[in-house]
Amino acid sequence: MQVVQVKAAGGPDQLATAFLPDPVPGAGEVLVRVAAAGVNRADLLQREGRYPPPPGAPDWPGLEISGVVAGHGPDVDASAWPVGTRVAALVPGGGYASAATVPVGMLLPVPDHVDLVDAAGLPEAVLTAWSNVVQVGRLAAGEVLLVQGGSGGVGSVAVQLGAALGAHVVATAGGAERAERCRALGARTVVDHRTQDVVAAVREATDGHGADVVLDVLGAGGLATNLDLLATGGRLVVIGTQRGTRGELDLGLLMARRASVAGTTLRARPPAEKERLVADVLDRAWPLLDDGRLRPVVHARLPLDRAADAHRLLESGDVFGKVLLLP
Amino acid sequence: MQVVQVKAAGGPDQLATAFLPDPVPGAGEVLVRVAAAGVNRADLLQREGRYPPPPGAPDWPGLEISGVVAGHGPDVDASAWPVGTRVAALVPGGGYASAATVPVGMLLPVPDHVDLVDAAGLPEAVLTAWSNVVQVGRLAAGEVLLVQGGSGGVGSVAVQLGAALGAHVVATAGGAERAERCRALGARTVVDHRTQDVVAAVREATDGHGADVVLDVLGAGGLATNLDLLATGGRLVVIGTQRGTRGELDLGLLMARRASVAGTTLRARPPAEKERLVADVLDRAWPLLDDGRLRPVVHARLPLDRAADAHRLLESGDVFGKVLLLP
Repeated sequence: MQVVQVKAAGGPDQLATAFLPDPVPGAGEVLVRVAAAGVNRADLLQREGRYPPPPGAPDWPGLEISGVVAGHGPDVDASAWPVGTRVAALVPGGGYASAATVPVGMLLPVPDHVDLVDAAGLPEAVLTAWSNVVQVGRLAAGEVLLVQGGSGGVGSVAVQLGAALGAHVVATAGGAERAERCRALGARTVVDHRTQDVVAAVREATDGHGADVVLDVLGAGGLATNLDLLATGGRLVVIGTQRGTRGELDLGLLMARRASVAGTTLRARPPAEKERLVADVLDRAWPLLDDGRLRPVVHARLPLDRAADAHRLLESGDVFGKVLLLP
Repeated sequence: MQVVQVKAAGGPDQLATAFLPDPVPGAGEVLVRVAAAGVNRADLLQREGRYPPPPGAPDWPGLEISGVVAGHGPDVDASAWPVGTRVAALVPGGGYASAATVPVGMLLPVPDHVDLVDAAGLPEAVLTAWSNVVQVGRLAAGEVLLVQGGSGGVGSVAVQLGAALGAHVVATAGGAERAERCRALGARTVVDHRTQDVVAAVREATDGHGADVVLDVLGAGGLATNLDLLATGGRLVVIGTQRGTRGELDLGLLMARRASVAGTTLRARPPAEKERLVADVLDRAWPLLDDGRLRPVVHARLPLDRAADAHRLLESGDVFGKVLLLP
């Protein structure tokens, strides 16, 4: 199979194509012939040597794939996942490849009307958004969800999920074109962080209420702003640290707001916990694909051997939604 | 009635006895003849002018009382709370008095075998500990609860509640005598913060696991330590800022731990929310009084006109449990 490996920690030029034997599915796993792999910020960190794959995972990058089932390991009910079944999946690493093995508990069936390549952009975004907005953030219908970065891979899915759950979704985005796309995904309010005061805009759009849940990728650089715009009882969920990891927290304000700050990552969770999350997503989020309330948001498709260009594109910040690599 | 008022923002000498007409219970309220009032740190802040009472509350201090029902306002079912019924209650202010009015939804009946004066030390501590350890912190049986300050009014109740819920309770306390008293309340492990490294001691006592829930009164000064000793998925709940309000939060570590930091206060909540909390406590925590798994922990009783001495005592930090004022 074709894979893209990291030759040594460093820039995009360190990504290089190689050819390895197909992986052999272990007990409880299927072999997937990959249609596409999603590119994530975590891949950039891994390439730089700052985010090593968990023990036992392939050492080349890639956290999510789509494709078709092509074989079964021991202890798999082949009739439940016949050869040719269209699937998507989160993988602990090794997605930049033409084949991968996946535990059946991690498989997400791809509905007929969803493009199989586009489906590679779903697993990480949907599982991350669901886990953080619904499970950690406990977003309820009628509440206000602020998505910091509605144009991102996770953000563009979080906007759709929030709208489907009946929340008032506020998204931040830079520029009129991105704002319009966030509205098309279901954001009732879009704040241009380049020209607007985000705290004031969120307060104004919510009659002073503020945000009940904030999904944040800024980290330390957004901490004071996010806390300031929280509603009483609000939940700030940090899933990225694009603007730093260490920031000052005003515990007096946190107490006065009766608020919380939570941080999570998806990759480090034990397999059983990931499978519980997949089951919950299959039950409650995946059905939203059926009527189009949830759609993959794809910025670009590139051949797998252009992974370096895909990384440069994501690093430029000039994307809306996901960048996909096709073996 | 006798009350203790704050003459002007300042030290304990600003507390002075005065005599006012008895309050008249409004719709849905009872009149309570006060047996005792609990003294809380919030009272010290209020005396210093840093914690004003909420709108509509009496302007003299006191957040909790015990006593007997002595009259009924309109729209109260007097047969449910006959004159003479022994009760305790959280009040929005005005507890330093020989009489107070209380909405029936805030009344906690005092069981026969619990001393009525001691019962004044229960409402704030039990409602605060329950709200933060169980509702916010979601402590489950078998988990590890760290109580930062097991000697405090809230801490000494949190230790008992945690033990009753089947948690492994770790308490911090200064000195051997306090440590022994924390053990008697149900702490399986006590860490002497004067002589031990708290992070190392918590890790050692839990086979490296760390604390699933931390109930903290230190605030900023304890933030780094508390985050460091959290288990994966741990919840830090801050209810006091005895060592500062602004501290550096390491969001990278928060994410790696999949942890959260929450802050709350009890006093600022709307009445309906407080009454829901009272109902939950009556249902799930108050029955623990029946078999002694939950007991008031009283350090000292002083006459109401010695409120200044009570404040000095609490400020000295040299207390274990509650200080009570008796009209």
